[in-house]
Amino acid sequence: MIRGNDPILLTPGPLTTSLATKQAMLRDWGSWDAGFNAITRSLCDDLIAIVRGQDTHVCVPMQGSGTFSVEAAIANVVPRGGKVLVPQNGAYCQRILKICKVLGRASVELPIPEDQPATAALIEAALLRDPSITHVAQVHCETGAGVLNPLPEIAALCARLGKGLIVDAMSSFGALEIDARTMPFDALVAATGKCIEGVPGMGFVLMKKSVLEASQGNSHSLALDLYDQYTYMQKTTQWRFTPPTHVVAAFRAALDQFLEEGGQQVRGARYRANYETLVSGMAVLGFRPFLSPDVQAPIIVTFHAPDDARYDFKTFYAKVRERGYILYPGKLTQVETFRVGCIGAIDANEMRNVVGAIGETLAEMGIEMKAPLARAA
Amino acid sequence: MIRGNDPILLTPGPLTTSLATKQAMLRDWGSWDAGFNAITRSLCDDLIAIVRGQDTHVCVPMQGSGTFSVEAAIANVVPRGGKVLVPQNGAYCQRILKICKVLGRASVELPIPEDQPATAALIEAALLRDPSITHVAQVHCETGAGVLNPLPEIAALCARLGKGLIVDAMSSFGALEIDARTMPFDALVAATGKCIEGVPGMGFVLMKKSVLEASQGNSHSLALDLYDQYTYMQKTTQWRFTPPTHVVAAFRAALDQFLEEGGQQVRGARYRANYETLVSGMAVLGFRPFLSPDVQAPIIVTFHAPDDARYDFKTFYAKVRERGYILYPGKLTQVETFRVGCIGAIDANEMRNVVGAIGETLAEMGIEMKAPLARAA
Repeated sequence: MIRGNDPILLTPGPLTTSLATKQAMLRDWGSWDAGFNAITRSLCDDLIAIVRGQDTHVCVPMQGSGTFSVEAAIANVVPRGGKVLVPQNGAYCQRILKICKVLGRASVELPIPEDQPATAALIEAALLRDPSITHVAQVHCETGAGVLNPLPEIAALCARLGKGLIVDAMSSFGALEIDARTMPFDALVAATGKCIEGVPGMGFVLMKKSVLEASQGNSHSLALDLYDQYTYMQKTTQWRFTPPTHVVAAFRAALDQFLEEGGQQVRGARYRANYETLVSGMAVLGFRPFLSPDVQAPIIVTFHAPDDARYDFKTFYAKVRERGYILYPGKLTQVETFRVGCIGAIDANEMRNVVGAIGETLAEMGIEMKAPLARAA
Repeated sequence: MIRGNDPILLTPGPLTTSLATKQAMLRDWGSWDAGFNAITRSLCDDLIAIVRGQDTHVCVPMQGSGTFSVEAAIANVVPRGGKVLVPQNGAYCQRILKICKVLGRASVELPIPEDQPATAALIEAALLRDPSITHVAQVHCETGAGVLNPLPEIAALCARLGKGLIVDAMSSFGALEIDARTMPFDALVAATGKCIEGVPGMGFVLMKKSVLEASQGNSHSLALDLYDQYTYMQKTTQWRFTPPTHVVAAFRAALDQFLEEGGQQVRGARYRANYETLVSGMAVLGFRPFLSPDVQAPIIVTFHAPDDARYDFKTFYAKVRERGYILYPGKLTQVETFRVGCIGAIDANEMRNVVGAIGETLAEMGIEMKAPLARAA
């Protein structure tokens, strides 16, 4: 790789952003200044519009990584006496369970194999088993393995049974369809550095107005208090505490590009083309995805590692990196895997190129692939 | 102002940063990549070295604004049964009291007039009145009015009486001398977007090793758990949750420039020269600082507003902004004031220029200043 040319990030975020997005950070903004606060306002309006929530929801931006916003959503939406069901098929579901534990919110784990989606039927059974459950916390796309959990049917179930719904849409927001009118939710969480293709440093919670209004005093934290953040911003147009001004400005630029590209459907189609190009190219090399295609989100793909003693991830990673692409380690406990992201300011060219880079790396490491892999049934 | 030339921020942060600092954000970093994690490691080492804490303290970086790190420090350092004394002479002291309240940490307010510093004598008396107090939470430079609180004598007192000390050094770190060997503290909090002249989006807590080690389980929050953040980073070299990669890279660039400039003493001298140029120029216009010079930190200066019916801050702000400078509103409840920051990638030229801009604005608004102002005794 030529020095100065940065590798392309094929990771679930931070991801490769456009130069226009990064160049938006070449200015310093005063956090008290009207121009900056107009940006914040416009971001919130656009984020709400993406999920068609103008009539029902508000947007509360929050400093920090996406996890900060997930914690804030649970703390604010679930009253201290509430109880949260967590359909659990991966690392980000486990993180929600950990948050509930630290916050002292009662939680119930609904274990699901990590290669299977949650279903409304499984969730309904769990809710019927324990009627004291008040909320469901659902990860939309579980990037641990890459599973797409079926939000429409889960949202419909929660609405029918009168349970609150918190959606971790970190890696799906902007790429997969989410419609607050047909998939009602109490709160939906995402962040700047994912499918809108901004830089990391800020999350946001799209919150049902009535839920926000009832949430005063729920938060365990001043910094993560969504009610306080929202009401202060409504009153003053400003953030309560110093916003990440450059991250906010870059997010505005990224959203402009998202809208120019054609919004969620076009963005989602680009990612799907990336995904298909990747998987078909990798298949030629002999790589098999961990997930069945019908449960796979076109966001990040987990591949079985080569079943060859000459393979180790660190060397593989380093050699692919030398060729200009940053892969992501697997996050499964039982199976040796690695992951390749399909999101960011990249297109199918990059996916063809990374397949080429992986092919060269295999040859250099002396790894022979069989198709299908030996580990396949 | 020529369109495209950005105004200079004379605010307590976000502030004007150098182009080199902003240009460091023109790259995308993988948060799992060794190159990025080496940056985080080097930042932590350099921050510890600035306060000579290599033998005693560790650095825990934290996503979010500085307030997130203040909350994290209180939550982690003060056990749930602890009690915090807060010498209170301004808005940031009040914020600490609010954090204690939300977190359920017992606190005692020691009220001090907002134009006066805390003193070791006042704090000692308060500690003797209530021996159940375990910690003192001290704001170093209270930017509400701009008061410098005497950290050396307060740290010595806490050490002598065996009380823990948490220092909010948000606006002083890097500009004023802080030495962990002679001013012992349990935790000291600052952030990227202040006197190191990075961009906002990340804070850090310099924590006494023994205090960190004893803090497991103290935190009310997963996101703000400093013990968890530190131990994970030690084990993996990585952040637990997505770091604000561009903010981190910009902070590295800003620290490089800080060290090249000559470190804290040289940076502090530049700010002092800014302060002196500002105050002497403003005096010629007839403006009087709210604080006496012996309690004033050279970080941000509060000026009495003109005692003239034609003055209103919004118009004044807008007209000075048109001339290229962003001022900051006052934060005092009893007296009409405004503030001018002396920090950022600026020098005495900017201070002369803003005085010129303010002079023109007064003329345009038809405001006549008397020296001293009518409100003076």
